[in-house]
Amino acid sequence: MTTIGDNSNQQLRSIVERIEHLAEEIDGLRGDQKDIYAEAKGNGYDVKILRKIIALRKKDPDARAEEAALLETYLAALGMEA
Amino acid sequence: MTTIGDNSNQQLRSIVERIEHLAEEIDGLRGDQKDIYAEAKGNGYDVKILRKIIALRKKDPDARAEEAALLETYLAALGMEA
Repeated sequence: MTTIGDNSNQQLRSIVERIEHLAEEIDGLRGDQKDIYAEAKGNGYDVKILRKIIALRKKDPDARAEEAALLETYLAALGMEA
Repeated sequence: MTTIGDNSNQQLRSIVERIEHLAEEIDGLRGDQKDIYAEAKGNGYDVKILRKIIALRKKDPDARAEEAALLETYLAALGMEA
């Protein structure tokens, strides 16, 4: 096994702990998001649709419009008009 | 289509924007993690092994020891001893 000196051990520990600390912060923020979804659900919002909205808002408006148009076209072709 | 009042519109917008704001913060922290991995790589660390270490440290030590023992047993059974 490769041995690495004390300095390297310390450097490695620092790297790992910094990554873990950020992971904890991310988990905390994810928990905050979960709370907001739970609160929204309590106020009568549909969480699945909220998640769709968040995903749609990430997309470029042109790409979104094109996808919507294609979806409509395919639905119409299959006699599934809403 | 269901219409929802101005208050509800505002409430919906607040929910969506709060979730998006948290998502931005999460993206930022993920970027910070990426920077640390890049820095570690620059210092000669193997990123794949670092990720394994982070995953291993999340596990309960007993569960980790049991997994390691089983892994060794199966490797031995297959004539793959290290």
